[in-house]
Amino acid sequence: MSERIVGELNPPERILLGPGPANIPPRVHKAMTTPLLGHLDPAFLAIMDETVHMLRLVFKTANKLTIPVSGTGSAGMEAALCNVIEPGDTVVVGVKGYFGERITDMAARYGAKVVRVEGEWGKPLAPAQFKAALEKEKNVKLVAVVHAETSTGILQPLPELARLAHDHGAMLLADTVTSLGGVDVRIDEWGVDIAYSGTQKCIGSPPGLAPITFGPRALEVLRNRKSKVANWYLDLTMLDRYWGAERTYHHTAPITMIYALHEALRVVLEEGLEQRFARHQKVASAFRAGVEAMGLGLLAPEGFRANPLTTVKIPQGVDDMAIRGALLNEYNIEVGGGLGPLKGKVWRVGLMGYNATSKNVFTLLSALEQLLPRQGFKPPPGAGLAAAQKALSA
Amino acid sequence: MSERIVGELNPPERILLGPGPANIPPRVHKAMTTPLLGHLDPAFLAIMDETVHMLRLVFKTANKLTIPVSGTGSAGMEAALCNVIEPGDTVVVGVKGYFGERITDMAARYGAKVVRVEGEWGKPLAPAQFKAALEKEKNVKLVAVVHAETSTGILQPLPELARLAHDHGAMLLADTVTSLGGVDVRIDEWGVDIAYSGTQKCIGSPPGLAPITFGPRALEVLRNRKSKVANWYLDLTMLDRYWGAERTYHHTAPITMIYALHEALRVVLEEGLEQRFARHQKVASAFRAGVEAMGLGLLAPEGFRANPLTTVKIPQGVDDMAIRGALLNEYNIEVGGGLGPLKGKVWRVGLMGYNATSKNVFTLLSALEQLLPRQGFKPPPGAGLAAAQKALSA
Repeated sequence: MSERIVGELNPPERILLGPGPANIPPRVHKAMTTPLLGHLDPAFLAIMDETVHMLRLVFKTANKLTIPVSGTGSAGMEAALCNVIEPGDTVVVGVKGYFGERITDMAARYGAKVVRVEGEWGKPLAPAQFKAALEKEKNVKLVAVVHAETSTGILQPLPELARLAHDHGAMLLADTVTSLGGVDVRIDEWGVDIAYSGTQKCIGSPPGLAPITFGPRALEVLRNRKSKVANWYLDLTMLDRYWGAERTYHHTAPITMIYALHEALRVVLEEGLEQRFARHQKVASAFRAGVEAMGLGLLAPEGFRANPLTTVKIPQGVDDMAIRGALLNEYNIEVGGGLGPLKGKVWRVGLMGYNATSKNVFTLLSALEQLLPRQGFKPPPGAGLAAAQKALSA
Repeated sequence: MSERIVGELNPPERILLGPGPANIPPRVHKAMTTPLLGHLDPAFLAIMDETVHMLRLVFKTANKLTIPVSGTGSAGMEAALCNVIEPGDTVVVGVKGYFGERITDMAARYGAKVVRVEGEWGKPLAPAQFKAALEKEKNVKLVAVVHAETSTGILQPLPELARLAHDHGAMLLADTVTSLGGVDVRIDEWGVDIAYSGTQKCIGSPPGLAPITFGPRALEVLRNRKSKVANWYLDLTMLDRYWGAERTYHHTAPITMIYALHEALRVVLEEGLEQRFARHQKVASAFRAGVEAMGLGLLAPEGFRANPLTTVKIPQGVDDMAIRGALLNEYNIEVGGGLGPLKGKVWRVGLMGYNATSKNVFTLLSALEQLLPRQGFKPPPGAGLAAAQKALSA
């Protein structure tokens, strides 16, 4: 065991245009230098109250049980599932990408009978598929679906799925990891019973917390469980007593991450949600216009594109890793590769939160125009930038 | 739903002398402003490698599977248990405080048959108690014990328990949340098979990560499981593939928290482990000498006191909340109250990591000397400070 001296952190400064984390506003970095407080300090409890107040505004919900779970987005997914599933429950899961697949894995670990509603990766699922599954299965407890699939860039409309679930006595659970703060999410109006997200995408905070919200139906299910929640750390019956009026100690909250989220939510609300969604829309449209003008294709069909994440088809003969490696090493730009069946077939480009800017669109399009010819793919010179500029001016 | 404007964070500056979190070195605050990297960026993978290298030095282990789990200390506890327990396994748990009790709750959720080895809160457990339980039960898989009980300030010696466990074919699991970085922990030499900790106590980083280490026996149990790990987020079979050579994506790592841990570990190793333990010893001894000279009693018996956390008995007739409230509001000092049966009976004083300084000892003793007379308890003037000063000069 060597006593090798480890040097000070000095990583390269990246532009993070992959599936997340995204870069964060300097104000959020600064907030993390705020002196620590104890997790039961009245001054910290006030910060918790302000944070959940802002989270409710961003989720567009009045749900009392709206808190940041002390883990990254996947901990939010697990918290959403483990608190309502008991062994033997039937759960219908929409699977049209990597994260829908992950939901099936987690739900099965908690003893659920998992019914898959499947679709091609890169297409939305049809409500009729869910209707058929709900009619065939008796007593479905939960329908789970990913709002913005980070693996495909597909935006799955939720209101009709909520109606269908409720008509069949089931709850709707939505993964809003990549949508919250970048695309409209209306928990109460749409009738979403359970939703979770992450902080490192459109919210503009580092990875480390998972906002979650439980509506009245979900709360009733939670309160009437026959068995203890199988997962101690994510047990909302106990977490609710810490974040709620009782303030009972559960685990030591990640104070600094909550400072960061508090500041990030202030930034989101100062900009205004509708203005923020419009910015994500405008910037994503410009990027898409640019790549299409360069002769590249898009995976997600028009009308179902998640603005925070665009999937670009890699042209025949172009080496995925060669381009992504050059982007990272020569331009300090990170973009994501494809997952599962899309590996080597798409790039995943995130224009999220602080990074959803026209500057980043131009930077990435310029870099691609420089790099693609090395792989034998020659976009018309200047066409991408011109199309992006035109879309921004529209 | 009001659109109340939430102001910038501006909390009071506290001296955190409770059970954790403790204040952290300014260098660690600064490290959190390091630009974000993606969780699969080669530059970040190098930082991960440096971090686990340093964690192994601090745990005094060569265990390959040594990583920070993406949650606070309790997530470490749960990761330690859920990865080795399968339904029906017998687990012997030492219960002599709040956190031993918590282990029984978690182990039962994963289907273990829990055998309690119990003792009075404020006393160590006798190895003979474990021996009796191991002889009575057949096929005990795991013996779990808290090294430094944060609820009582008891330090439980581990080497004999490891020998006993191994003699009976069981593994030893140790909670080192409050000991690691402040008291000697020798995973390999003592034969501890599984240990976990937190970052917010003697390590000197904010709460948010839980270092964990799995030795060869534990690894073999993990690899030969019949069932999937019931907890997805904490599944070490998958986490090991991210932190190990394969680098398979599991969840988005909390980048900023790992930056903080990286810097905190550098600070720990620059000071040197043995020097650090000696500092905690000296400062704790001075504080104890001071409170005893003031006429206050200590809960933990000599020889079994955990230096990072001292439990002070609250004198008859003195109101716990009145003193702690005044410490917080008038002196900006946080100390902890008692948990469970010790509620209202002890104060828990942490002198941990960055906060283990003679300055903090004098500050707290002075404040207590000012405040206790309000409750009718009059320490001999100056006696506490003089005794502390003498202990420091020894």
